[in-house]
Amino acid sequence: MVVVLAGDSTPAHRAEVIRRVRATGATVAARSPELLVVGGGRPDAGAYLAELPQVVNVATLTAEYPLVAAESRCQEPSVVSIAGCRIGPHGFAVIAGPCAVESRDQLVTIARAAREAGCHVLRGGAFKPRTSPYSFQGLGLAGLDLLAEARELTGLPFVTEVLDVRMAERVAAVADAVQVGARNMQNYPLLREVGRLERPVVLKRGPAATIDETLLAAEHILAAGNDRVVICERGIRTFEPGYRFTLDLAAVTVLRERTHLPVIVDPSHAAGATRRVPPLALAAAAAGADGVMVEVHHDPATARCDGQQALSPCQLQELTRSLRLAAGAAGRTLNPTPADTLVAPALAANPVPVSATPAVEPL
Amino acid sequence: MVVVLAGDSTPAHRAEVIRRVRATGATVAARSPELLVVGGGRPDAGAYLAELPQVVNVATLTAEYPLVAAESRCQEPSVVSIAGCRIGPHGFAVIAGPCAVESRDQLVTIARAAREAGCHVLRGGAFKPRTSPYSFQGLGLAGLDLLAEARELTGLPFVTEVLDVRMAERVAAVADAVQVGARNMQNYPLLREVGRLERPVVLKRGPAATIDETLLAAEHILAAGNDRVVICERGIRTFEPGYRFTLDLAAVTVLRERTHLPVIVDPSHAAGATRRVPPLALAAAAAGADGVMVEVHHDPATARCDGQQALSPCQLQELTRSLRLAAGAAGRTLNPTPADTLVAPALAANPVPVSATPAVEPL
Amino acid sequence: MVVVLAGDSTPAHRAEVIRRVRATGATVAARSPELLVVGGGRPDAGAYLAELPQVVNVATLTAEYPLVAAESRCQEPSVVSIAGCRIGPHGFAVIAGPCAVESRDQLVTIARAAREAGCHVLRGGAFKPRTSPYSFQGLGLAGLDLLAEARELTGLPFVTEVLDVRMAERVAAVADAVQVGARNMQNYPLLREVGRLERPVVLKRGPAATIDETLLAAEHILAAGNDRVVICERGIRTFEPGYRFTLDLAAVTVLRERTHLPVIVDPSHAAGATRRVPPLALAAAAAGADGVMVEVHHDPATARCDGQQALSPCQLQELTRSLRLAAGAAGRTLNPTPADTLVAPALAANPVPVSATPAVEPL
Amino acid sequence: MVVVLAGDSTPAHRAEVIRRVRATGATVAARSPELLVVGGGRPDAGAYLAELPQVVNVATLTAEYPLVAAESRCQEPSVVSIAGCRIGPHGFAVIAGPCAVESRDQLVTIARAAREAGCHVLRGGAFKPRTSPYSFQGLGLAGLDLLAEARELTGLPFVTEVLDVRMAERVAAVADAVQVGARNMQNYPLLREVGRLERPVVLKRGPAATIDETLLAAEHILAAGNDRVVICERGIRTFEPGYRFTLDLAAVTVLRERTHLPVIVDPSHAAGATRRVPPLALAAAAAGADGVMVEVHHDPATARCDGQQALSPCQLQELTRSLRLAAGAAGRTLNPTPADTLVAPALAANPVPVSATPAVEPL
Repeated sequence: MVVVLAGDSTPAHRAEVIRRVRATGATVAARSPELLVVGGGRPDAGAYLAELPQVVNVATLTAEYPLVAAESRCQEPSVVSIAGCRIGPHGFAVIAGPCAVESRDQLVTIARAAREAGCHVLRGGAFKPRTSPYSFQGLGLAGLDLLAEARELTGLPFVTEVLDVRMAERVAAVADAVQVGARNMQNYPLLREVGRLERPVVLKRGPAATIDETLLAAEHILAAGNDRVVICERGIRTFEPGYRFTLDLAAVTVLRERTHLPVIVDPSHAAGATRRVPPLALAAAAAGADGVMVEVHHDPATARCDGQQALSPCQLQELTRSLRLAAGAAGRTLNPTPADTLVAPALAANPVPVSATPAVEPL
Repeated sequence: MVVVLAGDSTPAHRAEVIRRVRATGATVAARSPELLVVGGGRPDAGAYLAELPQVVNVATLTAEYPLVAAESRCQEPSVVSIAGCRIGPHGFAVIAGPCAVESRDQLVTIARAAREAGCHVLRGGAFKPRTSPYSFQGLGLAGLDLLAEARELTGLPFVTEVLDVRMAERVAAVADAVQVGARNMQNYPLLREVGRLERPVVLKRGPAATIDETLLAAEHILAAGNDRVVICERGIRTFEPGYRFTLDLAAVTVLRERTHLPVIVDPSHAAGATRRVPPLALAAAAAGADGVMVEVHHDPATARCDGQQALSPCQLQELTRSLRLAAGAAGRTLNPTPADTLVAPALAANPVPVSATPAVEPL
Repeated sequence: MVVVLAGDSTPAHRAEVIRRVRATGATVAARSPELLVVGGGRPDAGAYLAELPQVVNVATLTAEYPLVAAESRCQEPSVVSIAGCRIGPHGFAVIAGPCAVESRDQLVTIARAAREAGCHVLRGGAFKPRTSPYSFQGLGLAGLDLLAEARELTGLPFVTEVLDVRMAERVAAVADAVQVGARNMQNYPLLREVGRLERPVVLKRGPAATIDETLLAAEHILAAGNDRVVICERGIRTFEPGYRFTLDLAAVTVLRERTHLPVIVDPSHAAGATRRVPPLALAAAAAGADGVMVEVHHDPATARCDGQQALSPCQLQELTRSLRLAAGAAGRTLNPTPADTLVAPALAANPVPVSATPAVEPL
Repeated sequence: MVVVLAGDSTPAHRAEVIRRVRATGATVAARSPELLVVGGGRPDAGAYLAELPQVVNVATLTAEYPLVAAESRCQEPSVVSIAGCRIGPHGFAVIAGPCAVESRDQLVTIARAAREAGCHVLRGGAFKPRTSPYSFQGLGLAGLDLLAEARELTGLPFVTEVLDVRMAERVAAVADAVQVGARNMQNYPLLREVGRLERPVVLKRGPAATIDETLLAAEHILAAGNDRVVICERGIRTFEPGYRFTLDLAAVTVLRERTHLPVIVDPSHAAGATRRVPPLALAAAAAGADGVMVEVHHDPATARCDGQQALSPCQLQELTRSLRLAAGAAGRTLNPTPADTLVAPALAANPVPVSATPAVEPL
């Protein structure tokens, strides 16, 4: 059962409706500002709830992912803002940075290049999931500090991956957005944990995940209380050995049909080779993505991770120029670049961005 | 062993070199205007041939597909011309038409719409490969006649699929280009047969074919004597059920690296739904394809084949406008539309376009 | 509409029913001894036909593949006999031989080894579909003659692939069964051609073909008049690079549910390495296949084709011993080996095994 | 660098070698009773270490997964014992139980059926990873208690999945073996955590994981100090929609070549339908697996999870009988069933089965 709340409902209204739901014996399995997913309760619970003043409608739960489905927002696409960078319809965002944070020099050099090329958000891994236990696993917390420093120097907000549920709050205390990587797309404790954060989440599609499974992973996050989710297509596993992953740009069109959440594309991991990244980034823009996320390195030959697919600062600059045209073919304009100021001090003053109450009850 | 001939070699020169190759006991496994692929022969055959006046170089055969490989043309992309429509670098071609030829009215209506939308080549199936024996199999020879009539009325050259080796010559006698469909990509007798035709060939990648297997299929055609081959990416088989095939736009970038042959993209079969075709066509253009091939129907609801993925004439017009921008992002301009004249009468005067001599000997 | 004929219908009865079908204005799209697939006709055609003496039932056509579907034989599995070797329930058949026929010595040596190991049918390619135009393409007609000679010497019937529609009759005039290879599974002219032969057909599943597409390919053959089809699972394309193809033994169980046709498994092409062939052949037997087809070579190191996956005669002998146990786990017994006599002279006296009338009319 | 220790090395010997490794400035990236994976150190570290009394050999690290590779144990397969049930060469183990623990009655009924059918280990999920946030997520800790109770009643040890790193120790304190599910195969914090446990680990292959990636995931566990890992093949993602996953039995043969770790097969999730489970379980045994893991339910129609693929107790009994034959075809015998006694009280006395020292240092 989905309970649709009035658009002008306040938190107090919502709390009141939730109180009434529970009074019927039902439980709130998931909630968003506009919707409650409700299970159980007296047989007449639906009729009773439908008459509450703040309730617009009570519908049977048909979609597999009621919070994420396009219908849940009347086909109106959402905008997710990463510290002021709006990811959603009309605009186009470029997220760029190194695969892994390696050193202060490396990160600051690349962040400045990203800033100069007109990018909007910095990416960089402090905790790296690596196929081999003997590969570089990232700088960890020290990497987070460097990302914060690069933000102060360039004004670019940053997104970084969280690997371990036990680190989610610490990462979110510093980062402007957290990323759930492709290998963790079905790591449900992690999805619930980032669902409790007050930070936007970039959720990467797993290499063997269907589009619907990806949306169900997003539903886990929304059901836990966080509706600021950006889906990221980054390539799927197929039989073709000519590159690393098969970038699935048709998924952008299908996601658009099925969800209101914004959709971006990471062409770097799929391409597996620098020269293929720009054509695929342009293709993503032309296909109607809300943004791209690309890997950049000022000295790819010495990169500790994925150097073979990193753009140079110069290639990044050229790419953002062409992206303007490709996004234009899809009826979009590149986002404005962040104002030339340092980040707002509010961020540091917001140390534990976790919602206080558990958002989900057993259905 | 690959024997590279001088750029100004005449057929007589080439014949003389071939005579000398055979004199060494070697055989000519494949040939193009610039290359001979040679097997066997005396141990000193290479050194002997290298000294012939028209021979620029004799190299060891390293590539799996020596005629098709980008190196065989010094990384210079080829242009394949379909009755004046140049498919290759810098330009961008739009091939459009119905999945199947259904009737004179249907075809002429759609051909005129394609012409008006600024498309360059008409497509339409007279012989249809159908998964079920109980589906409409096409109008056959009558369909070919209708295609020829549509060409006369609109000036658009046409490409149509050949399914059966026994029909290859008859199709080629009428069509401006023949298509080898995805299911026949490894039908070697058919590849050899179209390799003997004097018509361009659009070779579709099979849904389970790697990029290298696709190039080896093209090599079969070139080895049989026909180097006017256009590769067409049309989607591969993956686990994703959200659409018909996974359009592999990264393949466009990889094909570009590996072959001199032009590469076009058919987004219609992969998309499986009309609304997804324009974003994917734009993505193909932005990714650097040399053209797209799209399905169009003036009344999709009554189409006898694949109506659910056909563009309406109006959508086609809108698409070609946007393609101009997307191709621009990749540094290309849309091809000029064909001059407003009927096709050259030369075509009818060229009834048996088959090369007289078998092109391949056992290696 | 499916018209089910009485079990004791003679050809004359069948002809009479067909005459009546046509009298209603309907056409016979496909036929088998027990079924007619009928399209069109007067509105009351069904009721009229249901009352004919030889007609048991007239049903709406629901299955996509009415002739091939398990229901069309009341879930009773068919037996297809290759010159006396019964492929079907209860028994288990071993088809073995070289990938390609290379020489008289090679073939006779291997055929004798297959005979001694207790195999039932000889396999060997005279026409080889090869990914590269520069690979060995088989001995052609000379290879066919050698296969016939090996049959005379060992008493083993043989199956060999037909690649080209123009050769189908010539191959069928000599071979005991013809094979349609995986790359030709959707070569519809070829399917129709083998559907007109009076020879059993081994139809290999294409590497990107779903189970249902495989059954639809078989339906093409049955619809053309030949219901002696054996489906052969031989591995599908997936992302795993550790072997050549992913052998899909679950397909054996699903095929069993959906079709009455016998199902065998070729583990050699999937395995891509000799040491993996026996475990996979045993697995196929335990999974309930009706037989296996394996590649054998007396000197794998010198094989002109796929030597790396060929069993030695000694390994073949060991395998057939273990197959007895694995087939036993599935409730089957190995077929008896062919009696120690030469093949019946009838074969040579049956030179043009093609049905005289075209079997399919437009639906 | 890999340092191979003498077979009779004691922990004290090992500690001494590690002390010497560190004295050279090198670090120990991973260790097993027989091997140390060593990085860095003085140029002459290798020569110096090679002369230590307990060191048999110092080799360059060539395999991607030195601890897991078959060579690391001289091609000798390992045995992993789950509370006395030996999983490894010669024998064959059957692990059976419900998908999810639902209630005391359900679990005890099924555990007794498993015991009676001759199974060796009980499976059952207390924490369930579910694609939808609205599906039953398992009974959690209460489910663990029920599993312990079922063990007391039947004498069958049990394996259960751990989803959350924060629960790993609590699960391991009760369970005889912990399972890392397919979706968590690349959840590296979890792999490290189970690598610190003193419990065997059943590691399921991810649905898009190559065989080598699966072995690298196992390497993460061994590198963290736990070499009691059983690999479980459970099906991969392919284009075939006829079942849930494509069971990859060739992977069993390839894993055998590449690793010394035992390999079992879960046919239930791949099959997706009860009737397909027995043929696939038999196929796994015939292919040489060390065991199977199957889902069982006494009342599949009411199962809260995956009832459509559960065997009934009666089908389980029939299956174990046939498994005896199929394992026999692969030269194996079914393991003896556990002695008719309750589990050893030692288990309860071993509350915190975590190794005290961190096993991995940065390479």
